[in-house]
Amino acid sequence: MTLAELSAGPRRYRELERALEGISQRMMTLTLRRLERDGHVLRHVAPTVPPSVTYELSDLGRSFADHIAGLVAWSRRYKWEIEMAQAAYDTHPEI
Amino acid sequence: MTLAELSAGPRRYRELERALEGISQRMMTLTLRRLERDGHVLRHVAPTVPPSVTYELSDLGRSFADHIAGLVAWSRRYKWEIEMAQAAYDTHPEI
Repeated sequence: MTLAELSAGPRRYRELERALEGISQRMMTLTLRRLERDGHVLRHVAPTVPPSVTYELSDLGRSFADHIAGLVAWSRRYKWEIEMAQAAYDTHPEI
Repeated sequence: MTLAELSAGPRRYRELERALEGISQRMMTLTLRRLERDGHVLRHVAPTVPPSVTYELSDLGRSFADHIAGLVAWSRRYKWEIEMAQAAYDTHPEI
């Protein structure tokens, strides 16, 4: 979700928080730190008062986000087939 | 891992067990059942004595496995960049 939101362009913390409705502040901070630590996200601090922090996908992050987006698109595309398979399995688990 | 192994072709339970060294019987059984339930794997039971069970990727499973393989290849390709980013972050966590 964070990667998808940042794929649309750089975001300030508050913008991300609004876009990722329901995410706790703690989870968002941890997620951003992990993405930053893994080199997927760049963190820019503007010397305003108070300082303004912007997050942006790095090239590495963008290529990772592309893979994740492909997987998300795949799961949306085949959601129906998977649900049909699950329903069939649940009625005849061990034929 | 199971998907990768089945990408190479149909496998009997024992063959999978040998290929996935270290996986517990319980975990393998649960993994195969989940993959089967989600329609990614087809389970064939040959009427031998004792019955011989073979597992095979479905078309759905093959297309899913392709995405996963892409993600695995990506992580292998960028392993060094990620480790460099982590090392840099760990020395200067909050510049």
